[in-house]
Amino acid sequence: MTAPSPQPRKPLPDGFIDQLRAIIGDRATLGEAIRSQHGQSETHFDPVLPDVVVFAHSTGEVVELVRLCIVAEVPIIPYGAGTSIEGNALPVHGGVTVDLSQMDAILAVHQEDFDCTVQAGVRREQLNEYLRDQGLFFPIDPGANATIGGMASTRASGTNAVRYGTMREAILSLRVVTPDGRDIRTARRARKSAAGYDLTRLMIGSEGTLGIITEITLRLHAIPEAISAAVCSFGTLQGAVDTVVQSIQIGVPLARVELLDDHQMRAVNRWSKLDYPELTTLFFEFHGSQSYVEEQVRTVEGIAALNGGGEFRWSNLPEERSKLWKARHEAYYAAVNMRPGAVGWVTDVCVPISRLAECITQTRADLDKVSLPATILGHVGDGNFHVIFSMDLNSAQELAEVEALNHRLVDRALAMDGTCTGEHGIGLGKQDCLIDELGDAVETMRLIKRALDPKNLFNPGKIFAV
Amino acid sequence: MTAPSPQPRKPLPDGFIDQLRAIIGDRATLGEAIRSQHGQSETHFDPVLPDVVVFAHSTGEVVELVRLCIVAEVPIIPYGAGTSIEGNALPVHGGVTVDLSQMDAILAVHQEDFDCTVQAGVRREQLNEYLRDQGLFFPIDPGANATIGGMASTRASGTNAVRYGTMREAILSLRVVTPDGRDIRTARRARKSAAGYDLTRLMIGSEGTLGIITEITLRLHAIPEAISAAVCSFGTLQGAVDTVVQSIQIGVPLARVELLDDHQMRAVNRWSKLDYPELTTLFFEFHGSQSYVEEQVRTVEGIAALNGGGEFRWSNLPEERSKLWKARHEAYYAAVNMRPGAVGWVTDVCVPISRLAECITQTRADLDKVSLPATILGHVGDGNFHVIFSMDLNSAQELAEVEALNHRLVDRALAMDGTCTGEHGIGLGKQDCLIDELGDAVETMRLIKRALDPKNLFNPGKIFAV
Repeated sequence: MTAPSPQPRKPLPDGFIDQLRAIIGDRATLGEAIRSQHGQSETHFDPVLPDVVVFAHSTGEVVELVRLCIVAEVPIIPYGAGTSIEGNALPVHGGVTVDLSQMDAILAVHQEDFDCTVQAGVRREQLNEYLRDQGLFFPIDPGANATIGGMASTRASGTNAVRYGTMREAILSLRVVTPDGRDIRTARRARKSAAGYDLTRLMIGSEGTLGIITEITLRLHAIPEAISAAVCSFGTLQGAVDTVVQSIQIGVPLARVELLDDHQMRAVNRWSKLDYPELTTLFFEFHGSQSYVEEQVRTVEGIAALNGGGEFRWSNLPEERSKLWKARHEAYYAAVNMRPGAVGWVTDVCVPISRLAECITQTRADLDKVSLPATILGHVGDGNFHVIFSMDLNSAQELAEVEALNHRLVDRALAMDGTCTGEHGIGLGKQDCLIDELGDAVETMRLIKRALDPKNLFNPGKIFAV
Repeated sequence: MTAPSPQPRKPLPDGFIDQLRAIIGDRATLGEAIRSQHGQSETHFDPVLPDVVVFAHSTGEVVELVRLCIVAEVPIIPYGAGTSIEGNALPVHGGVTVDLSQMDAILAVHQEDFDCTVQAGVRREQLNEYLRDQGLFFPIDPGANATIGGMASTRASGTNAVRYGTMREAILSLRVVTPDGRDIRTARRARKSAAGYDLTRLMIGSEGTLGIITEITLRLHAIPEAISAAVCSFGTLQGAVDTVVQSIQIGVPLARVELLDDHQMRAVNRWSKLDYPELTTLFFEFHGSQSYVEEQVRTVEGIAALNGGGEFRWSNLPEERSKLWKARHEAYYAAVNMRPGAVGWVTDVCVPISRLAECITQTRADLDKVSLPATILGHVGDGNFHVIFSMDLNSAQELAEVEALNHRLVDRALAMDGTCTGEHGIGLGKQDCLIDELGDAVETMRLIKRALDPKNLFNPGKIFAV
């Protein structure tokens, strides 16, 4: 199945919509089109429509909405750009979807402190455009032009995480509306703190089940003096992975290192009209001073040559680099579109880097046996990779194949002491996997959920059954 | 007052000690000497003795101890090296202190993955000695030779945090005995994960109030090819802080940068028999390849010169570097011992780095007005600094002065959007400050505490009143 079994869904209480309108006016929408849009996912999950969609404009409004939903016992689901992968924002129990995309103000940039505070609906590309003139950037880059609130909620990471960390490291503080209707700030703007429980990190990755994030204070970085990007093909998967592992071991601070397998390179070439060799390929980026970047490059070129790597194809001008990374970011669409009419089904795991080559090799062997196209690509510096299936959602056989393969992949990652998801989250799709991964620890998560959201109204049905 | 008001303290139930001995044999100790040792703190807090001290040897034993304490409703307090600063391990409600220092096995080192798993009682110096031959090191360095479990519990950081992060970033996974007597692992060994709530980060810094950490999986780093350390004096505090801020802004990855004020330098010279100028001073360390370290050094020397810095005095040989950092690490003892018979009273705050010079300058002006000696030193790259008072604990006037000054300091830091503690934790000493800092968010912490530890048996009385 592509969605969990039908969930209990209560009708909205009488007068609820009027009360909602009293808070938010005509920014409460019952129209089919908007509800449909908020009931879709980017991937294979069946649509599930919310009862109503509201467009919040302030934390104060979110507080009022939450208080109304608590009293009325109506589910409430935060929504950003809708780019999540595991059905994380689907309103499976109905209720109110709170769309935060219009809360898109950049509230403050503290250049000297390398931080900024934004509303949850700000998108990462918008933020980086705004920051550019100040010589700063926000490094977390999951590919999609997601909202910062959504990225916080799913603990997103992406191509730069190997150097700059994930949303876990990128966030200094959150403003959150809690399931008891309080407006809290989880931390101050200091770089570090030992003051009490780390509510910031607890909220990051909680997928809207413990509160609605309305503002985020982010760490920023100086745009490096020099940036160089390159592509290098390898005769073997092992050679590519060994190049990454050895580069990290020797202390090269790779800013990005992405692996695309031969199938994915074929898709990229076709989709982005490029002519790379259709072999296992690494996309690199190096950041630093001019001389330090040159040193990094020399080191990695040497390591790649010893591991069967080909020539480095350089993209040093900003527009060339953009083209390269645009091709990488569109890899998902490239893969799915190899097959006309197909729908994407994407999964991700993350393993200790010493097991990565083995994990990818075994997975590729599995993929070569299924009846539908599938590609592998990943953030190999983190040990994290994705499998993208291009599937016919109407084919029960393909669905069975994909599900079986996904389970084999997760089991393999867990057997290597890895995780069932490096960056997509649990959402609807990986609840069994979470239990396989963390066992009894999930009971501790449930205790927290029940304590903070005793009526189970905040994005119910996600991460685990309460 | 130097300890909170007397806490309710129930006698141990009949037969409890026998039940304890059935679990742990003669490693349960009722002797005054051992109980006294576990009822002391490093700083100004009055001693409070536990009813019994047990020396655990395995997670299994801790599970049994916890289950017994739950049934008997006896408080249970984890204890490492006893080096915490805010009375974090004092058994203010009595009960069982579980000393984990004999659980000191290094369980696994995964060289290729840059991680290791250790028992909670391993000390950081022991770990680094063990790792040295493998070309790896564990960077978190709070000065004291603390246990890794204790460092996790207080979210410790220290001199290397500016480059390598704090315990928050250093820990991949924890094994924890929860207050319902379960033995959980909070995460797998993957570098990143989006699988469910971040229990790892929730436990880090929870000071033993949510569970007892028995094993820790840590991120490690490659020992850099080149390490250079230097000391540089400044005519003004502002010049020293500006040097740090500008170096970070320009992208120099300072591995360590410590500020010591003129009073602290006087103490260091006397204690460690050195002859540094008794001026505001920065202690630097640079890590990288030989050529990259040279580049960093040239850059920072140039910036320091523009900000009124003197000559850089280099310590490039390992034994010279050790001497330099030993002097830094002993700064606390150096400061306290400037006054014979004095006791140390130490506090810490952390502010956004743009406010640091102002915060330290105002604090120094305050200190110059009090009747007892006080020094300032700090991890200035993080915006974090300490004040050390050398006080006569029998002087009510000094106590009043110190408490007033500590409150002024915390209020100042909070007004700058900083935190009341960068790395010492809340413990007994900063519970009011926590509420001043995070307000309503403390209520969310309480909900979590009550849900996980409904009988309030785990290190009760710490962080906040439940």
